[in-house]
Amino acid sequence: MQPCVCTLLLALAMNAGCVRHGATHTEDRKMPFVRIAELEIDLSQLQAFTTIVKEEMSDSIRLEPGVWAIYAVAERDNPSKLRFFEIYADEAAYNAHRESAHFRKYVAATQSMIKSRKLIDTVPLQLSAKQ
Amino acid sequence: MQPCVCTLLLALAMNAGCVRHGATHTEDRKMPFVRIAELEIDLSQLQAFTTIVKEEMSDSIRLEPGVWAIYAVAERDNPSKLRFFEIYADEAAYNAHRESAHFRKYVAATQSMIKSRKLIDTVPLQLSAKQ
Repeated sequence: MQPCVCTLLLALAMNAGCVRHGATHTEDRKMPFVRIAELEIDLSQLQAFTTIVKEEMSDSIRLEPGVWAIYAVAERDNPSKLRFFEIYADEAAYNAHRESAHFRKYVAATQSMIKSRKLIDTVPLQLSAKQ
Repeated sequence: MQPCVCTLLLALAMNAGCVRHGATHTEDRKMPFVRIAELEIDLSQLQAFTTIVKEEMSDSIRLEPGVWAIYAVAERDNPSKLRFFEIYADEAAYNAHRESAHFRKYVAATQSMIKSRKLIDTVPLQLSAKQ
């Protein structure tokens, strides 16, 4: 497999400056919506789960304008514990994502693989990235 | 304050495709390095901490080529619990960041504000973002 260096464009609409967003800003409707999810996967099904969730992530980024980033990592010391950091244009975009065909397909295909799921509501303080 | 829509360019060098990276890939040296940190801040010092850490994040992105993104959010139901999702070019870039003057300044200025700190080592599964 050849190395691939690619450039991903992450468009973040924020009110309080290009790399700042105050948590107490009054125009919360224009804040990006950030969702954190922590999943523990049945170790015997981890490879199958990973294949399915990667496809779902790629579909979401490709098909949904309001899905700006979905990052998935495993805990190094416990590869069956996965953490997702997801950035949406706003909460409506997140809700639309949950109703999408590819998300529903992922949920149906993986529900027996997930031992536990924790969803964490957040308020962005600052989302800084290379310009 | 006027709304600002800005475009942040997140350059992710990955081996396994533009929006894919297999956790079991053999060329781990070329994987981005992702660090998750969970901090609980003394509530009475939260505003001061937030001001300092935002400046440190902005400095890191501006000054360090290997710091690609630092995202900071608060738990909605407990604003003194902060979560950081950080993407570096590689582990060497992360270690260099920890030695930087702005990071050391941040540590010195905030050590009395932090009630607890948990750092989580990770292996990226896939980092998907808008192109």
